[in-house]
Amino acid sequence: MSRLYIVGIGPGERAQMTPKAVEAINSSEVLCGYPVYLKLIEDLIREQKVVATPMRQEKKRCEIALREAVAGHVTAMVCSGDPGVYGMASLIFEMRESLGAGQVEIQVIAGITAANSAAAELGAPLNHDYAVISLSDLLTPWEVIEKRLALAAEADFVIALYNPSSRKRAGYLKRACEIILRYRDEGTLCGYVRNIARDGQETNILTLGELQNETVDMFTTVIIGSSNTRQLDGWMVTPRGYVL
Amino acid sequence: MSRLYIVGIGPGERAQMTPKAVEAINSSEVLCGYPVYLKLIEDLIREQKVVATPMRQEKKRCEIALREAVAGHVTAMVCSGDPGVYGMASLIFEMRESLGAGQVEIQVIAGITAANSAAAELGAPLNHDYAVISLSDLLTPWEVIEKRLALAAEADFVIALYNPSSRKRAGYLKRACEIILRYRDEGTLCGYVRNIARDGQETNILTLGELQNETVDMFTTVIIGSSNTRQLDGWMVTPRGYVL
Repeated sequence: MSRLYIVGIGPGERAQMTPKAVEAINSSEVLCGYPVYLKLIEDLIREQKVVATPMRQEKKRCEIALREAVAGHVTAMVCSGDPGVYGMASLIFEMRESLGAGQVEIQVIAGITAANSAAAELGAPLNHDYAVISLSDLLTPWEVIEKRLALAAEADFVIALYNPSSRKRAGYLKRACEIILRYRDEGTLCGYVRNIARDGQETNILTLGELQNETVDMFTTVIIGSSNTRQLDGWMVTPRGYVL
Repeated sequence: MSRLYIVGIGPGERAQMTPKAVEAINSSEVLCGYPVYLKLIEDLIREQKVVATPMRQEKKRCEIALREAVAGHVTAMVCSGDPGVYGMASLIFEMRESLGAGQVEIQVIAGITAANSAAAELGAPLNHDYAVISLSDLLTPWEVIEKRLALAAEADFVIALYNPSSRKRAGYLKRACEIILRYRDEGTLCGYVRNIARDGQETNILTLGELQNETVDMFTTVIIGSSNTRQLDGWMVTPRGYVL
């Protein structure tokens, strides 16, 4: 029996990865992950055994990691952003017992998740109450996503959207905007960041009306402002409420 | 004219602070912050001028930081967690122009915010859609907070609560639980972490019915599970939705 780290590497650049994450990767004998994420840490790979499984094979990836740990190998499951935000952490906890890995010591190592790293590039859009919603309906019924979008908009949360689009879900961002527009003004300030802290980073600040017709890809994080969010000299800012 | 970094140091331990944050502090001539946070990075303080202002003097603190930057000194505003989550980032953007600091180059450096660092200690409670709400009504009308709590509960978000209590707001967590209990079961799984990644860290997992009568302090972050959140071998886990 041994140890399994579930490691968040943050947005992508090494400067935004914590020493705790680096240390876990350095002290592991086996590294598991999605190929794109393992590529981001390739300079940390020395003698570790590397097991990469493609997208849609998350269960397989977690099974391999748990089996390696059960076999006595210190293992790290490498995730982008924070492993506890739409990452592999929950799945590992769920699969642990059935794989006879109840004795494996598990440690989750937080990373900076895309909502927060995107926010820093845009200014301070999450500086008041916010909601984080994934538009992927691979694992969540679309009706649930729609209900959450509507209630989050009604509550006037700033809303960070993960997985806003993919080839099979090209129209989802538009549908999400339409739902939010039932409660929010067309002029509501929005922003998005593509390839956060990676080569080719792009940021854009626009209105909700404009976002509705924007095409974004799966490497993009979208932030929809609350009714208080405003543009200040090119930055997207949600005031905390101080009287100036 | 010069540069102002708005720096997130994460939960507290150096191992969870990014190299980018360390570099900003090292390269600054002036460090501004709340005394407790400056204490957490005291080993990084060498020749920098240090300006600490107490709680409730946030505007003063931002003004000093902006004036130092205008005077040509590279300055860092040091915040715990993420400076863009209930931190000083928005206030600096708001005060910038009126203080004649329009030319100061501003960079926000994200840190791991309490919702995510607490989640890692509890297991994987934020592994599906979540909302972040502060219970402090110093800057936000309580009616707004109440409305957001109710709609977040109705939407079945996992809910992370910041500022769940203070001497003057001793009953606020109980009131929040009562609102959430209109939509959620008493058995809903909850957790909290006190002094995350600092000396004397305490974690607790309990039901919403129990949380209602729990006393927590202002150094505590509370996470209220969704209807899907469950306890797995002592961990608090919100499944992503994989069919096992």
